[in-house]
Amino acid sequence: MTERTKYVLDETRIPKSWYNPAADLPAAAPARHPVTGRPITPDDLGAIMPRDLIAQELSTEREIEIPGPVRRAYARWRPSPLFRAWGLERALGTPARIYYKYEGVSPTGSHKPNTAIAQAFYNKEAGVARLVTETGAGQWGSSLAFAGAMFGLDVKVYMVKITYHQKPYPKSLMETYGAVCVPSPSQETAAGRAILAEDPECSGSLGIATSEAVEVAIGDSRTNYAGGSVLNHVVTHQTVIGQEAMLQMDMANDWPDVVIGCAGGGSNLGGLAFPFIGERLRTGRKVRVIAAEPTSCPTLTQGRRVYDYGDTVGLTPCLMMHTLGHSFVPPPLHAGGLRYHGIAPLVSQALALGLMEAVAVPQTDCFAAGVLFARSEGIVPAPESTHAIRVAIDEAKRCREEGRAQTILFALSGHGLFDLPAYTRYLTGQLRDEPCDQDRLDRSLAKLPVFAEQ
Amino acid sequence: MTERTKYVLDETRIPKSWYNPAADLPAAAPARHPVTGRPITPDDLGAIMPRDLIAQELSTEREIEIPGPVRRAYARWRPSPLFRAWGLERALGTPARIYYKYEGVSPTGSHKPNTAIAQAFYNKEAGVARLVTETGAGQWGSSLAFAGAMFGLDVKVYMVKITYHQKPYPKSLMETYGAVCVPSPSQETAAGRAILAEDPECSGSLGIATSEAVEVAIGDSRTNYAGGSVLNHVVTHQTVIGQEAMLQMDMANDWPDVVIGCAGGGSNLGGLAFPFIGERLRTGRKVRVIAAEPTSCPTLTQGRRVYDYGDTVGLTPCLMMHTLGHSFVPPPLHAGGLRYHGIAPLVSQALALGLMEAVAVPQTDCFAAGVLFARSEGIVPAPESTHAIRVAIDEAKRCREEGRAQTILFALSGHGLFDLPAYTRYLTGQLRDEPCDQDRLDRSLAKLPVFAEQ
Repeated sequence: MTERTKYVLDETRIPKSWYNPAADLPAAAPARHPVTGRPITPDDLGAIMPRDLIAQELSTEREIEIPGPVRRAYARWRPSPLFRAWGLERALGTPARIYYKYEGVSPTGSHKPNTAIAQAFYNKEAGVARLVTETGAGQWGSSLAFAGAMFGLDVKVYMVKITYHQKPYPKSLMETYGAVCVPSPSQETAAGRAILAEDPECSGSLGIATSEAVEVAIGDSRTNYAGGSVLNHVVTHQTVIGQEAMLQMDMANDWPDVVIGCAGGGSNLGGLAFPFIGERLRTGRKVRVIAAEPTSCPTLTQGRRVYDYGDTVGLTPCLMMHTLGHSFVPPPLHAGGLRYHGIAPLVSQALALGLMEAVAVPQTDCFAAGVLFARSEGIVPAPESTHAIRVAIDEAKRCREEGRAQTILFALSGHGLFDLPAYTRYLTGQLRDEPCDQDRLDRSLAKLPVFAEQ
Repeated sequence: MTERTKYVLDETRIPKSWYNPAADLPAAAPARHPVTGRPITPDDLGAIMPRDLIAQELSTEREIEIPGPVRRAYARWRPSPLFRAWGLERALGTPARIYYKYEGVSPTGSHKPNTAIAQAFYNKEAGVARLVTETGAGQWGSSLAFAGAMFGLDVKVYMVKITYHQKPYPKSLMETYGAVCVPSPSQETAAGRAILAEDPECSGSLGIATSEAVEVAIGDSRTNYAGGSVLNHVVTHQTVIGQEAMLQMDMANDWPDVVIGCAGGGSNLGGLAFPFIGERLRTGRKVRVIAAEPTSCPTLTQGRRVYDYGDTVGLTPCLMMHTLGHSFVPPPLHAGGLRYHGIAPLVSQALALGLMEAVAVPQTDCFAAGVLFARSEGIVPAPESTHAIRVAIDEAKRCREEGRAQTILFALSGHGLFDLPAYTRYLTGQLRDEPCDQDRLDRSLAKLPVFAEQ
């Protein structure tokens, strides 16, 4: 063990290929057409995605080469640093060695540009003029806006209405990059109009915004859809995180016993964990992987693993994944992201195979962890990331109780500079915990697609 | 020339000493006692500063060793990256090679922690329990709050009232780090009460907030004052920026013809430029240095170089510096920082000696430069930093017109994520330029200390 605070790599060490987790997992249940229920074909996706990304979505090749222009764009912030959490370890008095892989150094402050840049590149190559997407807390929308600016693509973002109004900064960020940001549900789409007709006050959800974006992409041949999480190719793009972390753990002459990440759509967790899981599957080198999710949106711990739509209206393919039901809307109280009803099929499969565990943590415990982290490590974490910090702290305390010097590695998906009002609400006692409403969950699970269990 | 996007250094390359610009400049006019007008002594400063920092303030030694704990704290984000601005060069079609040294990677997003960490360390060593300071846009206050958390010191920040209310995020950031933030002028100090008695609606200024902070430090033996700019030791601490940049320009096999920085208190500009100026003075290696300041607060281009107070009330030592008069308050319109009436005596001296030029730029031109930078380089710059970008772009255009491939290096002092509402105001045509009011300036210059010209 050296005494470094952080492990940095030169841009020549940016991975030359993405790692595709599907290569080392058993064959997955295929995505299904939302209307016919038949396995989707590349043609089905052609209306909203370029050929190269469709190929990646369906690929089982282990390595997918990262194009030169993508690596050069990555070089604006990658490789990201791996930190040794000396301050947090001291604050906890733990014998555990804690490391975190920090993605907040990207221009938009989260891991999202790792896939935004890749998707913008392939769409530009395919002659697409505009990308359209949804965003909740704004990290994905602003990252796609950034990527659009880098590759000369127009970007339109449907932003969940409640966060559009509550979090004006990400909207300003998208506009500064030149993107257009619209509150969802909007009058611009049939999906939006139908929902507003039923409930004019609807404050929106990620599923609804996805319906709007996909509808626009289907209806315009020069416009494609870009997804910020969940899909296979998105998780694959995020594996630059874990591949770099492996190099950096080697630099530290250390190796994780436990790998932890917060789980919303699953791409940050998957991006860090799958390269380690792949190595375990190929070489037998053991690693525990823990997904940390909010108790208010407990996809992995209380959802069912069935086929479900990715959006609310049923325009997207159905995916085999843990889901709370596509009509599930988590309580509005919850600060930050991690509010999606489903999760990446790859993460869902890893959980089902016992390659991963899942823990649900309440938001005030997470903010307490975030404040301790800010005061001991200096970085104010995104509320999403605090779920991983919470579980890492709990693991480090267990090490202290058991007198075991384990090595813990967690994903710090981003900084919390856009979420400071939520920290103030926590510090002034205005945040409370909102468990998942069982009735709401039961109602939502009753509305799964007819072929959900196939 | 290599084709790198950024030049990164390992934490072992953090400078081992700060460079003290006073070592290579002619003897400076000493700071004077605010009441007696006599040159200040170390004892005069002992009430508000620890011995080690006083020694640095008065030192003419070229190298001041950086203590181990400071270097370890720096390692949380230093060395900061030097970027080649490929995207901006392409957007401008310039033959110039443009580089920028980016300080936005610090936990608070600006260069301010470079001195905050150092000051917190020396105060902790001296047994001080609490640091008190002023802040305008919030970058300094949040950086001192961060440093206080790192070294276990309480921190209290008097924040200019108008920004306290207009910019709630930095206040939340300070509180998340555990600091106390008070709007200034406040009822807590005699200085604040006197100003409120005269004008209950007073929206505050950096000079007033400084008066409050210094008054508190003078009145409490366990509390010291920490300054975020202007003072010699602050500029000295910031020279880690320029020293690293020299190593990184060497890595790029290139060297700047022009070095540019925005000038508020002068520490970011000085931190980047003085190591280059020092080399010029010692070896004759030529370098142009340009200070970029706002037309609304034109300290270097329209101020007088005389003795003036650092604060509004006259509690601080008088410094020989360019000043608009200590009662000058810039128009409230101006977005971002760079609103201080004076400037670092070291920067002022360099300008007077012809080692530096100064240019004033209007804020809408700066925001236009900031938006172009965001869309071509991916980073949304702090409004302060856009002044340097503006001048760098103008220099690059001149190179294009003259067909000269000069090398331009500028200081990107921080990111603009807390200033996104100002970008939205710019993008929607709500920002306008506010030149310096000549009557206001004349009135302010009429109120200089009686020994100003000595």
